[in-house]
Amino acid sequence: MSEPFTLDDRLSHDCHWLADLSLSRLLLMNNALLPWFILVPKVDVVELHELSTEQQQQLLAEINLISRFLQQTFTPDKLNVAAIGNIVRQLHIHIVGRSTHDICWPGVVWGVEQREAYVQTRLDSLSRQLEGYLPTDTRIHRPIAKP
Amino acid sequence: MSEPFTLDDRLSHDCHWLADLSLSRLLLMNNALLPWFILVPKVDVVELHELSTEQQQQLLAEINLISRFLQQTFTPDKLNVAAIGNIVRQLHIHIVGRSTHDICWPGVVWGVEQREAYVQTRLDSLSRQLEGYLPTDTRIHRPIAKP
Repeated sequence: MSEPFTLDDRLSHDCHWLADLSLSRLLLMNNALLPWFILVPKVDVVELHELSTEQQQQLLAEINLISRFLQQTFTPDKLNVAAIGNIVRQLHIHIVGRSTHDICWPGVVWGVEQREAYVQTRLDSLSRQLEGYLPTDTRIHRPIAKP
Repeated sequence: MSEPFTLDDRLSHDCHWLADLSLSRLLLMNNALLPWFILVPKVDVVELHELSTEQQQQLLAEINLISRFLQQTFTPDKLNVAAIGNIVRQLHIHIVGRSTHDICWPGVVWGVEQREAYVQTRLDSLSRQLEGYLPTDTRIHRPIAKP
């Protein structure tokens, strides 16, 4: 992990900071209409294939970890896993749980404007679930609901 | 690799078959407006995290390989790499080269209707470039332009 790490302003504005994994910061898109996590590797690259082999391995492990958490917690019908970055160039990987009844099925979530901010009780409960699931040495960050 | 492998009908209809890599079949979306490759692991799973560790490693190597080919051949401004599968459940990974001047920048390519079929000369030239780039034991498949 290369320090110092600065999270892109737009990700910081749109998301809640949930935890720091070995390689990546774990974010939650502040939209309670969809279970939508984002992993941001704390290294200065733009494309997936620019990561070192070791970093790619670690990112893959973190994608698996969060995919499984999302699957067991939200039981989605499908996962969408994507590195896009047309607007925010800082490398970040979306892991989104999709349901055949969600707001934009079967379309993709990017570009959808419908949003609902998380309330504090839901953030607290999600944070507790994550804390029980992630390795015990993970740095958990307590999110505060945004107005 | 588990045989027999059957490609999903929709992928077969929408794409050209370019090659078979160790794990995945390499397809080209039949839309000359965007450089858009698709890797289809020849195993029967739906989600990335359901692949075995060995299969994930191989897929990662193939994503790197095709990302670099796309980058050097088309010099895009950004790559979009994604496993979505809301419509076609067979696991497949999109690797799309994006340009700030393309038909849907900075939006995503999924759901965009604008298409232009590849002509034979472009398919032939792309196939030759791929053949020169891929490992020599790769099974290359010669695409035929679709009406």
